[in-house]
Amino acid sequence: MSKIKALGEFGLIHRLSSRLKFHAPDTILGIGDDCAVYPVTSGTNEVITTDALVEDVHFKLSATTPEALGRKALSVNLSDIAAMGATPQRAMVTIGVSKKISASFLDRLYGGFDSICNQFKVELVGGDTVSSPKCFFINVSVIGKINPKRVFTRHGARRGDLIFVTGTLGDSSLGMKLLHRKKRRASSKDYEFLIARHLNPTPRIQEASILARSKIDITAMIDISDGLVQDLYHICKASNVGARIQEDRLPQSAAFSRACNRNQIDPFPFLLNGGEDYELLFTLPPDGVRNLKRQFSKANVLITQIGEIALKPKKVFLEKSDGRSKFLPDSEGFNHF
Amino acid sequence: MSKIKALGEFGLIHRLSSRLKFHAPDTILGIGDDCAVYPVTSGTNEVITTDALVEDVHFKLSATTPEALGRKALSVNLSDIAAMGATPQRAMVTIGVSKKISASFLDRLYGGFDSICNQFKVELVGGDTVSSPKCFFINVSVIGKINPKRVFTRHGARRGDLIFVTGTLGDSSLGMKLLHRKKRRASSKDYEFLIARHLNPTPRIQEASILARSKIDITAMIDISDGLVQDLYHICKASNVGARIQEDRLPQSAAFSRACNRNQIDPFPFLLNGGEDYELLFTLPPDGVRNLKRQFSKANVLITQIGEIALKPKKVFLEKSDGRSKFLPDSEGFNHF
Repeated sequence: MSKIKALGEFGLIHRLSSRLKFHAPDTILGIGDDCAVYPVTSGTNEVITTDALVEDVHFKLSATTPEALGRKALSVNLSDIAAMGATPQRAMVTIGVSKKISASFLDRLYGGFDSICNQFKVELVGGDTVSSPKCFFINVSVIGKINPKRVFTRHGARRGDLIFVTGTLGDSSLGMKLLHRKKRRASSKDYEFLIARHLNPTPRIQEASILARSKIDITAMIDISDGLVQDLYHICKASNVGARIQEDRLPQSAAFSRACNRNQIDPFPFLLNGGEDYELLFTLPPDGVRNLKRQFSKANVLITQIGEIALKPKKVFLEKSDGRSKFLPDSEGFNHF
Repeated sequence: MSKIKALGEFGLIHRLSSRLKFHAPDTILGIGDDCAVYPVTSGTNEVITTDALVEDVHFKLSATTPEALGRKALSVNLSDIAAMGATPQRAMVTIGVSKKISASFLDRLYGGFDSICNQFKVELVGGDTVSSPKCFFINVSVIGKINPKRVFTRHGARRGDLIFVTGTLGDSSLGMKLLHRKKRRASSKDYEFLIARHLNPTPRIQEASILARSKIDITAMIDISDGLVQDLYHICKASNVGARIQEDRLPQSAAFSRACNRNQIDPFPFLLNGGEDYELLFTLPPDGVRNLKRQFSKANVLITQIGEIALKPKKVFLEKSDGRSKFLPDSEGFNHF
């Protein structure tokens, strides 16, 4: 901390903000005043979200890099923006700097922020830098714009709607397990893929944009951060419906399947409750599926129908491959407390 | 934490959000989805700010109440909104919940949020609730609207402009000293006033609104959070000017003067560098003063001219009552690290 102390709060802010290369052309005032100032886009609504990562709760410094942590802190917020069908525009970052955090660590953290800002054209317009001797934390808020006619909430799913997810499930939670086990095995491409899915999740901004630009009647959407079942419950509760999902439809990556086979790991806890997939989970009436599939195959993006919305309110059932049906409780996802 | 654990993240969010009574009529989607959604106000720009309070850095749980802490966490952000001449509209709150924080503490904290939200018509539209076993923290982001023609930044002060502050200086830092000294003296009205100025600062939203609605050419503005001299340096550096302030013009409350006298305390370190005054510090050309005084006397709000902008770049001088002049360095304010 000695270097940070010597820099002081304002020296540190100056140093870190100089690492941020993406500047939105319309921002009126970025980092360095009491507030950031920017124009509103007429004809749109705005969305805002905030998410914090706390050391030893959401990440371990020994198991990630500052760059990956910076990317992830922004990505998990962009994932919430994607979940509404919105486009991210600006971010604010608070860092609570603990005693063991160095100035060069923060340089690399901001390198991670900058990488995501560049990739998704999001300007980091301000924040707060505070001392937090006992724990290091990062809080990010992101603002975006949204077409008022294409706001995808959790509360519109209806009986008979089909349930889709983007990408594959379970990679992140299996990656975390591999990352944190005591005996590290020899690394492999599969392991690296799974660990990268945990440390470097990709927010599904592109996929959300395809849905928002389409005319498909998306009745509900959420991003999977707490685990498929838990997040499906969020949709079911908000929409006052139930859901049936089919075990053999849950999309797995090749690396995930091979790693489960090789280590005799049951894949279903990871697929159903793993969490931090940051894939989109959404529902639509069956007559939209043809258009949906056309849009996503054009963009070469994987989407999978995993089940359908049922009437039985607020209950999620899993149809197993042997035809039996199993009630899935809603409390097995990630509980922060 | 057992009750919080039993409630779970979503039970806790539901419980706390039910305490928030102010809802803006135009909010489209508040707490409970991936993002909050709201319309933009055409003809305005937006401002956003964020500020965190960390236990044992910015507050001590033994020296405040949960309600006061909730109010202050919002107020310090509203003060930044005021500093631009903007009107606050919506807030997002992240709480990092440590082991010693109980559900009833959080109820009272949200009671404090609600009190400020009601007073200033700000809707708390979302946030994040995370476990942070080792340290309790609160991060607040506030969005507001601003007239594009009345954006008061730090960088427009010019030679010859006069320097004004709202209210009185030093109360908060003297209040903090009284609050934290080991031997508590018998309480008095004066002590209570000073301590309340520390624990319950009032963001100068009303004063900012008077300035924004007026035609006065405010050339620079900031809120005093780091101490008068440090924040004046922010204006001087951003505007590439210097400043002279006059010792005998620095506004003191009666309680502050009496407490300094009674305890043989030198008032100037508190007036100049105390910090957390959350008053507005602003500059304007002399020809605007008459209008300024008329506006504020109509509103019955104290403002005081404390000095003027000088050409000598980035230096602040104090003119003492004996006519001598003293250079004030810029590093004596509150340094977080």
